[in-house]
Amino acid sequence: MNAEIITIGDELLIGQVVDTNSAYMAQRLNRLGISLKQITSVHDDAEHIQSAVRQAFTRADIVLTTGGLGPTKDDITKPVLCNLFHTRLVESEEVKRHILRLYASRPEVLNRLTQTQWQVPQSALILPNRVGSAPLMVFETSAVDGHPQWLISMPGVPYEMQIAMEEQIEPYLVKQLQQKGVLTQDITHLTALVSGIPESSLAIVLEEWETALPKDMHLAYLPKDGTIRLRLSGYGVDRKDLQQEFDTMCRLVGEWLVEKEDIPLEVAVGRILKQRGQTIATAESCTGGRLAALLNAHSGSSAFYMGSVVAYDNAVKRDVLGVNAQDLDMYGAVSEQVVRQMAEGVRQLMHTDYAIATSGIAGPTGGTALKPVGTVWIAWATPDDTYTECCQLGKLREQITLRACTKALVKQLSILNQ
Amino acid sequence: MNAEIITIGDELLIGQVVDTNSAYMAQRLNRLGISLKQITSVHDDAEHIQSAVRQAFTRADIVLTTGGLGPTKDDITKPVLCNLFHTRLVESEEVKRHILRLYASRPEVLNRLTQTQWQVPQSALILPNRVGSAPLMVFETSAVDGHPQWLISMPGVPYEMQIAMEEQIEPYLVKQLQQKGVLTQDITHLTALVSGIPESSLAIVLEEWETALPKDMHLAYLPKDGTIRLRLSGYGVDRKDLQQEFDTMCRLVGEWLVEKEDIPLEVAVGRILKQRGQTIATAESCTGGRLAALLNAHSGSSAFYMGSVVAYDNAVKRDVLGVNAQDLDMYGAVSEQVVRQMAEGVRQLMHTDYAIATSGIAGPTGGTALKPVGTVWIAWATPDDTYTECCQLGKLREQITLRACTKALVKQLSILNQ
Repeated sequence: MNAEIITIGDELLIGQVVDTNSAYMAQRLNRLGISLKQITSVHDDAEHIQSAVRQAFTRADIVLTTGGLGPTKDDITKPVLCNLFHTRLVESEEVKRHILRLYASRPEVLNRLTQTQWQVPQSALILPNRVGSAPLMVFETSAVDGHPQWLISMPGVPYEMQIAMEEQIEPYLVKQLQQKGVLTQDITHLTALVSGIPESSLAIVLEEWETALPKDMHLAYLPKDGTIRLRLSGYGVDRKDLQQEFDTMCRLVGEWLVEKEDIPLEVAVGRILKQRGQTIATAESCTGGRLAALLNAHSGSSAFYMGSVVAYDNAVKRDVLGVNAQDLDMYGAVSEQVVRQMAEGVRQLMHTDYAIATSGIAGPTGGTALKPVGTVWIAWATPDDTYTECCQLGKLREQITLRACTKALVKQLSILNQ
Repeated sequence: MNAEIITIGDELLIGQVVDTNSAYMAQRLNRLGISLKQITSVHDDAEHIQSAVRQAFTRADIVLTTGGLGPTKDDITKPVLCNLFHTRLVESEEVKRHILRLYASRPEVLNRLTQTQWQVPQSALILPNRVGSAPLMVFETSAVDGHPQWLISMPGVPYEMQIAMEEQIEPYLVKQLQQKGVLTQDITHLTALVSGIPESSLAIVLEEWETALPKDMHLAYLPKDGTIRLRLSGYGVDRKDLQQEFDTMCRLVGEWLVEKEDIPLEVAVGRILKQRGQTIATAESCTGGRLAALLNAHSGSSAFYMGSVVAYDNAVKRDVLGVNAQDLDMYGAVSEQVVRQMAEGVRQLMHTDYAIATSGIAGPTGGTALKPVGTVWIAWATPDDTYTECCQLGKLREQITLRACTKALVKQLSILNQ
């Protein structure tokens, strides 16, 4: 069973908004065994939307669209779909009741434009949108050969779409596919995280094994922020056989293997800390709060994450973290001496078992011959010892800070696994 | 002049990676007066890549592709393009010299697979990739009616693509379009940031003016994280006329107008602070470092941003920020009393003019009847006074933290503009 996604909105085509919806939907569809063939982004343009939908149906049986369902003039998805499916807008009592309830405490929202939101295409099935006023619409149609096809239209606001997908669209699709006896292919991905080896060298390590893989298994290399994710995918294969090949791959990767699951590094770190009842804190200069944000991004992080001192200014390093003023003067903020004291300082301040500190030159200015842009010192304080490392993490500000976070977590994980 | 983007890679279609490249390229093309018609993401699949390219050329004269240029087996863009443009791979001395220089200090990278990187399509123009080994390739061809068309292939690693785009592809395109006498249409966007009014109510405020807009001007509403960006676009119109309409729009928006430029909120805040030689610090519980990361995301932020205490644990609120232990017990961490002391505490600790503090229930657990998930207290400490506000920011963890950051910065900007 194949699907395609069409995301609708001028903001995508002028680059004002990054399309995060597609990746989310792709993940969810994949879990249901539905392969995504193509993602297409088009303007709020009636003709272009229609031709994109028609082309998508030549390759896929399920077409999901997002966007263009707001109450304002630039939102045209509803009339376009009416035109495409030869139907017209009618008032839905049910949607009306829902919207009136939704905005009961904010009557100022219930104006003339919001009221157009309970106009829905007559031939569409309307599923409830728990958190917004835009209708979730399903059009069922059939291909030339008579087999069923679906167009599903959702709002473009990410959290509305996510709730719609999980609570309404997925259960609906599963039921439909079962009822119609449509077989979905089992797609399984196993992903390992690797660090410390160039992509091409890793490929040579794995070459012989990769070449001998069965036809229905496929390996992909995904380099990002100083790590490589190795994704082994199986299409309709026995999970045991895939797992066996995956284990062989992990053995071949050897010392460069960081993690055998496709979970974020911070989740892997947090899981071990939680199991052991241990805690961690951070002291951040160049990463500026990003390491903290990663470590508390997931629910339940308060069990192991105490907090961070973002010490952007040297006075903060000195006064809050207790870094020696002479060392700051003599060695500079980006130095082993300072980053070590930052890590040990925050560990003491927040009474944690572990602490990580970063100090680096994120650029574009501030580099010198001895400490060029991209130089980052990282320290890991533990109950027994403090480790430090100097890394060269690239040339671009964002890349440097992201890689510093990755590096900090990779090493923290290896310390915890020692 | 129209363009399309094709991003290539299985990782996009299974949702393992969000396509950030397209938005970046879209922005850059737009500045050159090149309209983007469509963005298409496809698998590493030879036939699908070829048909996507062919279809793109029916709508656009410039097709930009990213991805599939790595040294590993899953990267197939080079041979696919050779096939499509009836050419073959040959060794390029120049690319070889570049790659040898690039990896001079890391000879372990120069293995057999990296060496395939200096094999390039014979008929393509190769532009230098300053930071990586994948070639930048330009194929010039012509449409049925004889006018020139270009296919440009770039690596998918975001920072490599960005450097390629800015340093090589854009200058090349500008020169080509000038030489060939191809006219590009002037596209101008003016964007204002609005907060505190529902989208549909804003649309009613602007309705009469919007309906009377000339045909070559277009208004779009972009709601995000509790704000709405209003984008007024002009196609081939005089910038003065567009500016005049934009000013009228801003007057109509009135008190809800936050910012008349399309710059991030944190840049607007930072700019005023820098001009005045003032400083700011943050104390974060529920936003967990995200507010800090925003405030120091841009180069030059050390001039006004001192640092943050991410006080995830109550002990940190008490010991580092000096929040009264009794107040923590009596009112709870998510309370006016505590958030006020957090803001005032960090302002004192870091000796700044301003400070912002956040404390809220980001969920999914921890909500109560009186303080449901989404309740966030924010405090703004200033040299004269401390302001506090309690907000209800939604239901999803990520949405709540992002909206809290937005809210914190919107109000900070209004305090600075008082």
